[in-house]
Formats: sequence, structure tokens, C-alpha cells
Amino acid sequence: MKKNLSILGSTGSIGRNTLKIVEMFPERFAVRAIAAKTNVALLAEQIEQFAPEVAVVFDEARAIELRNRLDASAVSKTSKVDILHGEAGYMAAAAHDSVDMMVTAVVGAAGLRPTLAAIDAGKDIALANKETLVMAGEIVMTRAADKGVNILPVDSEHSAIFQCLAGQRREDLDKILLTASGGPFRNTPKAEFAKIRPEHALNHPTWQMGNKITIDSATLMNKGLEVIEAVRLFDVSHERIQVVIHPQSIIHSMVAYRDGSVIAQLGVPDMRGAIAYAMSWPERLPINQPIPDFPNLTLTFQEPDMEKFPCLALAFNACEAGGTLPAVLNAANEVAVHAFLDHRISFADIPKLIKGTMERHTIVRDPSLSDILEADRWAREESTS
Amino acid sequence: MKKNLSILGSTGSIGRNTLKIVEMFPERFAVRAIAAKTNVALLAEQIEQFAPEVAVVFDEARAIELRNRLDASAVSKTSKVDILHGEAGYMAAAAHDSVDMMVTAVVGAAGLRPTLAAIDAGKDIALANKETLVMAGEIVMTRAADKGVNILPVDSEHSAIFQCLAGQRREDLDKILLTASGGPFRNTPKAEFAKIRPEHALNHPTWQMGNKITIDSATLMNKGLEVIEAVRLFDVSHERIQVVIHPQSIIHSMVAYRDGSVIAQLGVPDMRGAIAYAMSWPERLPINQPIPDFPNLTLTFQEPDMEKFPCLALAFNACEAGGTLPAVLNAANEVAVHAFLDHRISFADIPKLIKGTMERHTIVRDPSLSDILEADRWAREESTS
Repeated sequence: MKKNLSILGSTGSIGRNTLKIVEMFPERFAVRAIAAKTNVALLAEQIEQFAPEVAVVFDEARAIELRNRLDASAVSKTSKVDILHGEAGYMAAAAHDSVDMMVTAVVGAAGLRPTLAAIDAGKDIALANKETLVMAGEIVMTRAADKGVNILPVDSEHSAIFQCLAGQRREDLDKILLTASGGPFRNTPKAEFAKIRPEHALNHPTWQMGNKITIDSATLMNKGLEVIEAVRLFDVSHERIQVVIHPQSIIHSMVAYRDGSVIAQLGVPDMRGAIAYAMSWPERLPINQPIPDFPNLTLTFQEPDMEKFPCLALAFNACEAGGTLPAVLNAANEVAVHAFLDHRISFADIPKLIKGTMERHTIVRDPSLSDILEADRWAREESTS
Repeated sequence: MKKNLSILGSTGSIGRNTLKIVEMFPERFAVRAIAAKTNVALLAEQIEQFAPEVAVVFDEARAIELRNRLDASAVSKTSKVDILHGEAGYMAAAAHDSVDMMVTAVVGAAGLRPTLAAIDAGKDIALANKETLVMAGEIVMTRAADKGVNILPVDSEHSAIFQCLAGQRREDLDKILLTASGGPFRNTPKAEFAKIRPEHALNHPTWQMGNKITIDSATLMNKGLEVIEAVRLFDVSHERIQVVIHPQSIIHSMVAYRDGSVIAQLGVPDMRGAIAYAMSWPERLPINQPIPDFPNLTLTFQEPDMEKFPCLALAFNACEAGGTLPAVLNAANEVAVHAFLDHRISFADIPKLIKGTMERHTIVRDPSLSDILEADRWAREESTS
């Protein structure tokens, strides 16, 4: 029987790779719903190829543009795709009747409400949107447990941890060793950080990703968000998470057990492995991915430098403080990254902007979803001013 | 409830480390039977400490010496230990009523019949004696399956593979990556092999082990025997086993799956991890073993040089040919190693002696246990002359 997918963020790198897996295994997967923020040209191609029942574009004007494109195309005349827009459109794609699993591959806070809608509708979630868990991890995981819904991580690190926990007793877990490439400025002296320009930061050594996550990798905020994501996803204390710099990105993360044994998951740095695993779990698909070329490998490790990369320390702080602070960290980071990409602030200003916003926030304990969304809104406003 | 152990080879390095685990967790383990080949002094101490019901010494004269020692000791007057000798003694220790698990830690072919006796008596096996599976792996594994007995590997590599297979679907397995330290002569030019003396070979870089296995590590025959052991234990073709040289011995082995994902087990090079895991599986014990010090690690890998280390190729050949040939390989290797340790042949002669014996052997297909024991006997005689 085919697994029916809804893909939120189908035109981004995770979305496109998800569709490559669908293409490889047409007998196992069908695409029922598809959503993108702006790339209408690619979305139109995807609709023609995968024939979903629902397609969503965030912006209404672009949704009309999509309709016109499809009407102009010969193929689409046979397609009865419903075209929706806005957050309501995302929510409809998330909860669509024919869908078994939603792939949340949108960037930033936009993933939260559709993910909750999909969980409420009983869909399994392949989660590439870490902000969802950073902002509202407790709410999301509790609701998923209540609904008996599986949350399958798509981030390569969390997929690795998930794989390293398979077949093990949770009470034997000692700690999670979250690996990080260290980003392009691992060996750059801190004194030069003020001179870093977006084009330097966008040149990531091992992973090909979108702009926001590439900057997050350069500041190590990506790793910080992953720490919070891991805390939520695997229900462990942040004290049980140790970040290990591993520049080759071959070991995708590890789990240490109380007998001193460490289980690691390794692979070439290609996101398709984690995507396919989330899609097919507990099975593995023959995706023609080579294993790492061990005879010619050298794997090295370092401790992260939290002084040089204060974003990582800020994330640990936010995680420890809890409540609405992780949502504030996340929102301020989004604002800061965009300001840096727009050349409005320097690379060294990113953590300063986030820290200042966090310090001015009054944490709400045991927040409701609306408390979290309000904290998110507040932090965006506060950090933009 | 306590797990009751029978330890065959209690005075060797595996046996002594097994007893250290018992000592750490007296509420979980009891020693009911204990057996050693020659070290009566240590065996007497072990009997006084662990109070087994049965103790065995291989040699009858030494069994009498043990009885006298115990009678002379104040403590032993309260001990009602039965003292047995010979293979019959080993068999009795293996099948003893009160025993739940037998730890097979004897060296060489001597482990085979007691292991079968323990399986027939329904005991789980913690198997450190790889020769048992090399000689008669098909018989042992079939009988264990029939009896519903668990065979838990104690070799660190096989323990690693076992851990990397946990929670995974067997049909997703691609290959086993069996790591090898490469031994002390990994970087020694082949031309110098004829000059290697036992004292050089006994100086193993990462593992502290007995003499026979240390020489086997230097010739890579240990890895060859492990290939055959893995084939039997995990029921895979030798074509699915790739040996990878990894001098640091931190990754204890890996399993690659068909999606390109590789699961590895890592740990400091200390055999207690694998021993404790076999003893407590599926639980893990807090044995105060540190995890590897990742920030300061560099892990490297190489392809094995089968021309320089022909023993590894001979083992693959024996495995592929099957029948009685693995038993012949194993027996000829035992003879060759002892001849080398006694300065009767050179290091470079070891593979030659084994190869010659293998070439003169007429393979018996689908061998019975007596066919295997006869091949073992034949090969010892043939390689000694």
C-alpha cells in the first residue's frame, strides 16, 4: 500500500529531495498535497509531475499566478488540483483526508501550526522544521503522544540519534553526542568575525542547504536549535547533550550508554539518507547512497568554542530556562539572520541581538500555544526595532 | 533474580574480567561452576572468593593439587566445591543444573564440545572462544536455534556488530564492516617479516590479551577467524564482510545498511564492555567505563594488505570453501602459532604452514561433529610433522 504524503515546503532543498525519493519509489509513495512559499514556477512543475490533490502557495497573488500557469499548460488540464493559499491553505494541506504522513520542510516558525494541525488529524510527521520543536516542543510531543502519531526526525543529526536509540533501553542512555561540522569559521579567529560577509558564511564546507540554515551553521545557532530539538524529541535533559565538533560530517551523531558503549550513525553528508529513513521507517530503502569510503577517511573531533560561538551557549541557556524563552531565541535569531543577510548587521552582531532580546523577555512558564506565538511575535518586534 | 554462571577459562584474561563484573554486581550474578587449564593457584583464589559448586582443572594431577590447596586453606573448609578434571569435567561444568549461562573463555578447539554440551542443556552462551564457531559454526548455531539458546558474542567486534544490528531489519543489511587494529606490523615492510620474533609480536598496540590471540592479531589470522565467526554468528555470506583497518581500535565494528546508513559501535579498547554486555543483555550495566575522549580523538582507516598478511586471505578462502576447511585452518594455525612462540618457525612461516596443510586437506562437505574433530586432529598431525 502506498504512503500518501503532504509536503510543506516542497520547493526547498528538503522538499526537492523528498520528491526525489518519491520519484525513485513510485510504488511506495504518492504525493497528495504540496505547499510552497514563493517558487511558483517549480511548484507548477512538481504539480504536473506528482499530481497532488491540493497545492498551496502562501501568497494569494502567487496562488493566482500558479492557477494561470497550470491552466496554460497542456498537462494540467487533466489535473484537478485544488489551489489554496495562506496559513489556512497550509493547514488544509496538513490535515488533508487522504494524507498518511506530512513532511514539514518549511523554514522557521511557519511550520508550527500546520504541524499541530497534522498531528490533530492523526498524520505521522517527518519533521525537518526544527523551529517547531524549539518553539513548542512540549506541546507538539505531548499532542503527538496523545494521538499516537510518530514524529520522525529529518535533520541528519536527529535521524542519527533516532537510529542509535533503536533496539536500546532508554534507561541505559547516558548522553547524546550531537556532532557539528563547526561551520566555515571553525578556525577563523574571533577578531575577524566582524568582517564576515554573507557570501563567506553561505559557503558551507560539507552540507548544501538553504540560506537561513547555512548562516545558522556558521554561528552554531543551528547546533543550538538542534540541542533544544533533541531535548524535546528524545525527552532528555540538556545536561545529557554534549556537542562535539566533527568537521568531516561523517558521523551524524552518537548516543553513549551507561556501560561506556557508544552507538554512532555514519553516512556521506547527503540529506537524502535521513529523509528516506523518515519516510520509510522502520524499513530502509535502497536509495543508491554509497557508504563512506572508510579506507580513505580521517575523522577528527574538537570541543566547541562557546566563547567564539555564543549562539550555542544562548541556546543551552534558553533550553535550561525553558518556558517561552526558546521561542524568543528562535524568533530573534530569524530576525538577526535576515538582518545579516541584508547587510544590516555584522556577523558578530547576530548573538548580541539575540542575547539582548532574550534578556528583555519576561518568561512565561508552561506556556500555551498562544503564549508561545505571542512570545514569537514580541521577540520579532523587539529584535527588529 | 541472579544469573548463575559457569565460566570455562576463568584464569585467562576474559575469565578474570568476567569475574570482575561479577564482583561489581554481586546482586545480579553468581558463579556456580569454574574451570581452568593449568593455573591452580589463581583458581584456588577464585574458588575462595566466588564459592562455586563445581571447579574443574583439565589435568588430573593438578586437580589433586587444587584439592590439597583448598584443604590446606582455612576458608575452604566451609566450601563444598566438587573438583573435577579432564574434558568430562568441562562438560559437567557446562551442563551443571544450577547454571543459566556459560561463559566460554577457553582458548582454541577445547571450547567446542563443552559449548555444545551447554547448548544441549539449554544454557545461554557468552562466547569468547571464536574457534568453536570457526570449526563447527553451522552445527553450533543450528543446535542453539533448536534449543532456543542465545549465543552472545564476547569478542569486541562481534559484540559491536550485535549491538549495531539491534532494532534493525535483517533484510536491510548491506554489509558488515569488521574493524581491525592491524596489529603491531601494520607498517612493517614484508621483507622484515622473517626477522620478527615472538617478543615483538606479543607487544600489541591497543589490546591486552593472551599470547595465542596476540600472535593471531599480528598475523591478522585473528581477523580472519573473526570473519568466519561473523559469518556463522550473523548468518551472512563472507562476501558481505569487509575488513577495515582502524589502528585506534575505537570503532569496534560497523554495519552498513542498504540506504547507505552505517551504524557503528565505539568504546575504549577494554574487553569488559563486551563481556558485561553479553552477561547482561539486553540490559547494559553501569561498569564505570569512560566513553572515548572524542575532542582529542583522530580516527583513521586503511584497507587491509592481504598480500602482506596472507592469513586473512586464507581465512576468507576457508570460509568460502566451507565444510571441514575452517577447522583445518584453525588447527593448523594453532600449531603454527605455538611453533612460532617456541622459536621453531619464523613469523613468515606461519601462513605457509597453514596454507600447505589446507592444500593437502580433502574437504568433507556438510561435516558431522566427528568429521570436524577428525579434520582438527588430522590438521594438527599434518602441520606438526
